[in-house]
Amino acid sequence: MDARTDAAIAPHLSRRQMRRILDRYRVVSDKGFRLRDYDPADTAGHLLSKPQAGLIVARDVHRLAALQDRLYAQNEWSVLCVLQAIDAAGKDGTIKHVMSGVNPQGVQVTCFKAPGPEELAHDFLWRANRALPPRGHIGIFNRSHYEEVLVVRVHPETLARQHLPPELLGKRLWQQRLESIAGFERYLTLQGTVVLKFFLNVSREKQKRRFLERLEEKDKHWKFSASDLAERAYWDDYQAAYENAIAATASAHAPWFVVPADNKWFTRFIVVAAMIEALEALDLRIAPLGPEQQAALDAARQKLESEPGKHAARSAD
Amino acid sequence: MDARTDAAIAPHLSRRQMRRILDRYRVVSDKGFRLRDYDPADTAGHLLSKPQAGLIVARDVHRLAALQDRLYAQNEWSVLCVLQAIDAAGKDGTIKHVMSGVNPQGVQVTCFKAPGPEELAHDFLWRANRALPPRGHIGIFNRSHYEEVLVVRVHPETLARQHLPPELLGKRLWQQRLESIAGFERYLTLQGTVVLKFFLNVSREKQKRRFLERLEEKDKHWKFSASDLAERAYWDDYQAAYENAIAATASAHAPWFVVPADNKWFTRFIVVAAMIEALEALDLRIAPLGPEQQAALDAARQKLESEPGKHAARSAD
Repeated sequence: MDARTDAAIAPHLSRRQMRRILDRYRVVSDKGFRLRDYDPADTAGHLLSKPQAGLIVARDVHRLAALQDRLYAQNEWSVLCVLQAIDAAGKDGTIKHVMSGVNPQGVQVTCFKAPGPEELAHDFLWRANRALPPRGHIGIFNRSHYEEVLVVRVHPETLARQHLPPELLGKRLWQQRLESIAGFERYLTLQGTVVLKFFLNVSREKQKRRFLERLEEKDKHWKFSASDLAERAYWDDYQAAYENAIAATASAHAPWFVVPADNKWFTRFIVVAAMIEALEALDLRIAPLGPEQQAALDAARQKLESEPGKHAARSAD
Repeated sequence: MDARTDAAIAPHLSRRQMRRILDRYRVVSDKGFRLRDYDPADTAGHLLSKPQAGLIVARDVHRLAALQDRLYAQNEWSVLCVLQAIDAAGKDGTIKHVMSGVNPQGVQVTCFKAPGPEELAHDFLWRANRALPPRGHIGIFNRSHYEEVLVVRVHPETLARQHLPPELLGKRLWQQRLESIAGFERYLTLQGTVVLKFFLNVSREKQKRRFLERLEEKDKHWKFSASDLAERAYWDDYQAAYENAIAATASAHAPWFVVPADNKWFTRFIVVAAMIEALEALDLRIAPLGPEQQAALDAARQKLESEPGKHAARSAD
């Protein structure tokens, strides 16, 4: 698909309009934040139609690929996207859809499953640290260090596997972990990592319907696991843990987006729009060459051109 | 050497006396800290004689090994010792001397040399994170993340290799890095890592003499590199950078020890004493077995004992 053609078809949304839509879901502080104020079925009302969103996403996936090329060439910033959600909210599909156009050499997706022995033997941010994207790269965390204040909090008995000294398991444990995460992310932004966090906010009813689909459609069976259903019983605990985690770690430098996730097309629209907004804010220009670098390129060109002719012939086959 | 015999010979120093000696060099806040108040040739005056120190160190090296065994068996805490110093202050010798008795399975020593391309492509704490000791282990950092506010600060032109976005290279860069380090260490202590930091404080005159020894004695030639001498020219810059780094990151949970390093016997005495004090404060007891675990051990014993006799015979060879 040609990006220019799409742009011609797609009803234009200005940066200001995009920003207005994103601001509905952006959380940058704990002030007055309540998860129940965010409707999982919201689709930005009159600001956007579904066909319009589809065209914009198709174009934005191309733009994202181009921006990532520049991020890679400039080699100064990195981008970390954290995707968190309960089951069947659409994390995998969003990653697949949004990141498919991007050169995989510049992207690393890390799925955080249950930690193994080496990971449990270290501090809880250790494995997140190891998976951080290098400069010039986009890192996607499919689940993340936040699991340590979500699933571990909802099932505190799993803490025992971390072998922490009992003296350190005080009342303030979760608050301390959230402060540690906020400090970690603040540090990353000072080191040139742009941090974006997405909570895919699905409704209880929609999760049920998606689980049923997985049970009914043969080619979706592999996606269903009985443990997903077991976790559903802890719905309210998870909502409370998410609300607390988002409030405690939302900041201007590492914002959360509470992305409505009952409609997949809208989820993708918001995630890709937020990534593009963040990348465009970096103003990724390739620095012009200095006189020395220009001279080095000129010398290289001369050297190549002065090679005997038979080599040039060989390169043609 | 038998630890009990040593204890009989060595003039006893009570915990209070040891603490009094350690307190001379311990820094837990920036209040009134000035590096020039610390004499590199100090040996705790009348509190300790050289032969007494030698005997105590010999005994303490055994005690350290025993404490590390318990640390490993209990598998809850870890210990991180950071050793920083300018050249020829005795880092390598101290590590060799103090840690030689300890089971290497429970210790990992990491030498931080000039960072490579993968390390430079990440945030400055990334490689320190990867080298953190797992629970039950002692980690020794021979140089450390502090190099980022020492050698990089003294030679700011090396910052270019880190490819940081120019927007982030502001006036507060070094202060921000120091705050990041303090936050990192605070987090580690909350995760069960005991953090001890040693600055081996050698005098300018003593460094000169040790360099000359390296040049004169054939079997010390390998230790000398011309770049060491080049760094000596930046003596005052390094002292200033150390003073600032120690002041900004000294805390009760992650103390610095400014260890006099003109006399190697005294350096070793202080380092091992500080490690023992910290390990003893953990009260490393192996938890008694619960009834279930006891039953499991009993069952295992019964099973082994009920095996046919020929296996028992075979195990004798």
